[in-house]
Amino acid sequence: MNYKIIVQYDGTRYNGWQKQKNTKDTIQGKLEVLLSKMTGYPVEVHGSGRTDAGVHALAQTANFHLKTKQEPAELLHYLNRYLPADISVTDVQSVSERFHSRLNAVSKTYRYRIGIGPVRNVFERSYIFHMEETPDVTRMREAAAYLIGEHDFMSFNSNQRTKKSTVRRIDSIEIRSCANEITIDFTGNGFLYNMVRILTGTLVEAGLGKRAPEEIPAILSAKNRQAAGITMPPCGLTLVEVRYF
Amino acid sequence: MNYKIIVQYDGTRYNGWQKQKNTKDTIQGKLEVLLSKMTGYPVEVHGSGRTDAGVHALAQTANFHLKTKQEPAELLHYLNRYLPADISVTDVQSVSERFHSRLNAVSKTYRYRIGIGPVRNVFERSYIFHMEETPDVTRMREAAAYLIGEHDFMSFNSNQRTKKSTVRRIDSIEIRSCANEITIDFTGNGFLYNMVRILTGTLVEAGLGKRAPEEIPAILSAKNRQAAGITMPPCGLTLVEVRYF
Repeated sequence: MNYKIIVQYDGTRYNGWQKQKNTKDTIQGKLEVLLSKMTGYPVEVHGSGRTDAGVHALAQTANFHLKTKQEPAELLHYLNRYLPADISVTDVQSVSERFHSRLNAVSKTYRYRIGIGPVRNVFERSYIFHMEETPDVTRMREAAAYLIGEHDFMSFNSNQRTKKSTVRRIDSIEIRSCANEITIDFTGNGFLYNMVRILTGTLVEAGLGKRAPEEIPAILSAKNRQAAGITMPPCGLTLVEVRYF
Repeated sequence: MNYKIIVQYDGTRYNGWQKQKNTKDTIQGKLEVLLSKMTGYPVEVHGSGRTDAGVHALAQTANFHLKTKQEPAELLHYLNRYLPADISVTDVQSVSERFHSRLNAVSKTYRYRIGIGPVRNVFERSYIFHMEETPDVTRMREAAAYLIGEHDFMSFNSNQRTKKSTVRRIDSIEIRSCANEITIDFTGNGFLYNMVRILTGTLVEAGLGKRAPEEIPAILSAKNRQAAGITMPPCGLTLVEVRYF
């Protein structure tokens, strides 16, 4: 039986989604340990994609196969009972055997939240990166417009040794500004390693007047990480949604 | 010069608002140390009232006197620059010398947030007390109705040795229920030690069928802490607003 789950997490204290040899503190690792304990056999949990260390998820999607049929509501209860307080499973569904959370994902939305001005948001401080300076949102939007569509995002990739394609499609970049916060929603068919954080860093530099919005096409065609802006800290980033057909 | 400030804090790691001899970890203590360092002389910060260890504030009000005139915007910047990330000052105003945040307060609103059901809210977990069982909101509202008005709240007071009046007036108790959360807003002219948490515990017991809503008048007239319900944990409680004429 194949189960699709929606996972919410505060990534602050984790080494990201993907399990690693030397650390147990990953979201995938926590879920696999729990499911393997429940079933008595090893269970592999497939996420829609990795999230980096310190990055959060409002709704990460994952799936796993069990040898026996379980009630989705019971699985939900069991997982939430034993998961730590910074990980929740918000939904469990029984799905077709062929469903794969990564291979079948058609688009994803990531949100980067920037706090601005002298007053920090106390209650959401772990999910917002705070800046003293205020970037110009109009300039950020001008720069963002050049990023829409299918491009080789090699310049926005922290892994410069990859041999896989670095071509991705960005469907939209929505930048909202209200009171003390700027929120940027990136929707696309996939994102490279650190790509959203480098995109955000480059947009912020454009907003602060350190770059011209018109530089973006040259940054893209450079296909070199050095051409783009800084990698923003992980705390401001949240995987918001993963869409399937 | 007299300054009125609005303070927001995540009370999780503090021993409450009020400074104490043996601990520096109080909100009042943090503010006083900072202002005394800035001015070079001892500054006393008067809060609208104490909040207990672990209790939060969306908008605690306080005031303090300085010997010299300062720009409110500069004070705001200075305080936020040096305060820890779980305390923010959201407003600073220069006010009449006679203003006193505790003596002039006419009403306060406290909010208790209860998470219900199998799914915990990951991002707000520090500000919500989570329960597995679901209290009946209609029963809670029936019980709450008996508490409105001026009463001796001795039964809802953790300090049974007080010699001061325990008569208080509750103006409203608003209970809202949505999806996975029950929120209770208590507005009144003042609250005794642990009073909101004991009121909430008693309402929750009524909602779970452990008490009849009609018991409330007898609990009030008992004037004995043993008659009322449990003291709810501090994490769910937030001081939301303090009103002045």
